[in-house]
Amino acid sequence: MSVSQKNWSKTEEQIAYKALKKAYETEITSLMEYVANQSAKITQVDELWQLHDFLSAKRHQIDGKYDYSDPALIFVLAQLLQEGLLQTDDLEGLERDKLAKISSLAQIGF
Amino acid sequence: MSVSQKNWSKTEEQIAYKALKKAYETEITSLMEYVANQSAKITQVDELWQLHDFLSAKRHQIDGKYDYSDPALIFVLAQLLQEGLLQTDDLEGLERDKLAKISSLAQIGF
Repeated sequence: MSVSQKNWSKTEEQIAYKALKKAYETEITSLMEYVANQSAKITQVDELWQLHDFLSAKRHQIDGKYDYSDPALIFVLAQLLQEGLLQTDDLEGLERDKLAKISSLAQIGF
Repeated sequence: MSVSQKNWSKTEEQIAYKALKKAYETEITSLMEYVANQSAKITQVDELWQLHDFLSAKRHQIDGKYDYSDPALIFVLAQLLQEGLLQTDDLEGLERDKLAKISSLAQIGF
């Protein structure tokens, strides 16, 4: 993993990487559970295709969301915070101004 | 439903329609069961995306397979017979030469 911004220290890169990894695993686990639950309830073909459409959209979204090379890492982390996939504790160790920006962005629902 | 071939009688159209409907329902039911079973076993994200890929391919295949307006209805019925989604009994009432063609095609695995 390489975070391209020069204003991220090595330690901050590691914190960001760990946070993104945690959020990714949380989201994937939740998605796998959701798919298993929904699949078990399906009785109509339309519901099956709806699940397929949902999975297509989710896959596309997740593929883009966890791009570690994203120069807008602040926004990526803010989005994960906003979605509840990360807590502020997970970002402990980042510079104060970065944390403030991430928290503000997460709160305003950019 | 309209079977465009002029050499299909109204009764034969009805038989073909009923057979295709039965095969479609059998295939969809089996697919729903498969997806529910597979989803319950998934523990890795790669397996989830594999299931998604499988479902994408299957949906595309099914969309094309049950085209009632297909001028090659003989081939459609032969394929369903070959796949075990229809039995020859389901086609009872079709003209003898049509049945012979369908059975032959199904056997040779066109």
